[in-house]
Amino acid sequence: MIAEAISAGWRIESQFLAPGGARVFGTESDIYQLADGVMERAATTATPQPVIAIAERRVSTLTELPESGWIVVADRVSDPGNMGTILRSAEAAGACAVVLTNETVEAFNPKVVRSSAGALFHVPVVEGIELADIASAGFRLVGTSSHHQPGVVEYTKADLSGRVAVVVGNEAHGMSLDINVEQWVNIPHFGRGESLNVAMAATLICFEVAQQQAAK
Amino acid sequence: MIAEAISAGWRIESQFLAPGGARVFGTESDIYQLADGVMERAATTATPQPVIAIAERRVSTLTELPESGWIVVADRVSDPGNMGTILRSAEAAGACAVVLTNETVEAFNPKVVRSSAGALFHVPVVEGIELADIASAGFRLVGTSSHHQPGVVEYTKADLSGRVAVVVGNEAHGMSLDINVEQWVNIPHFGRGESLNVAMAATLICFEVAQQQAAK
Repeated sequence: MIAEAISAGWRIESQFLAPGGARVFGTESDIYQLADGVMERAATTATPQPVIAIAERRVSTLTELPESGWIVVADRVSDPGNMGTILRSAEAAGACAVVLTNETVEAFNPKVVRSSAGALFHVPVVEGIELADIASAGFRLVGTSSHHQPGVVEYTKADLSGRVAVVVGNEAHGMSLDINVEQWVNIPHFGRGESLNVAMAATLICFEVAQQQAAK
Repeated sequence: MIAEAISAGWRIESQFLAPGGARVFGTESDIYQLADGVMERAATTATPQPVIAIAERRVSTLTELPESGWIVVADRVSDPGNMGTILRSAEAAGACAVVLTNETVEAFNPKVVRSSAGALFHVPVVEGIELADIASAGFRLVGTSSHHQPGVVEYTKADLSGRVAVVVGNEAHGMSLDINVEQWVNIPHFGRGESLNVAMAATLICFEVAQQQAAK
């Protein structure tokens, strides 16, 4: 994970090594040796890795994003595992950024960082945004819903080309409805209503966007 | 989860209730009241629910599967969370069964049951199978690979109609290569090689199969 951050050009300020732990090379950083048992108390997992790194957080703003890209928006997503998968999907599908609204779990929550499997270091993240800001920045808002919004179309039949922002919402409550989206999309599926979760929905929609963007 | 099993017609042999726990109705089952602190020792999670149910396990065989359906095969998948998502994807996409090869994590592993979010109760499961058995049962084997197998095509350009068995493999080693598949497919993606995991790949491929099967 640390090597992943370094390879993506992140600045590692310092590394803390448990006894027996080896520093990760490829960057300049201050190195601290920890006494026995300290890592176990400092780390957020039950069986920590022998190295902790402090990286300089990189945050982007909406205005820095390229003119031609598309983005994924996580609106009030609360589960860190889901947020991690959304980051992975966005990176793998070629989104130019992932935008998190105010009520979404923090991108730098340790569980999000781990479940993103390094994706967080490879795709720009913008936090603390309102959906209205995204529309103002020139993105077409595409909302996902498991309900029957007016004008909803299947995700594979919607126009997801160009400068789109696909929005996925809260696990229980979906996305905010106090904003006008340009297009609602849904994912037709068999089985029970709750059979698809937000992470799976994000994967499917991100790759449909990728297909459509590549076809242009 | 118990209500989910009952609604899917599973037989619940018995329910064990922690103090304050309420039995789930909708089925006949023996009810046992547990003393304080017993549930915490018996359950497999740190903060268990107040009810444990014993359900009669339902297993299917390849020969019982309908003539017209398609299936998902998990070949040596080892992570319970990934296996749970594969079950969810298969159910949501309308697969008629999920088949687990000999070296795959057990479908009834408690972590798989939980991460399947009830899908396990709604899609037939066949365990302990070899890939060769699946071909013998009349399925066209479609293999997924992150490598460049001879004749590999993009998953959206492959023929995934009819009686197909889409095979996803081990997290680190992929699927077994000691069997001839009819078609190799891959998922073109941006980002790093490891940006898509097997659960995400299964979601994408299952829904591509669903699209193609619905188009016929």
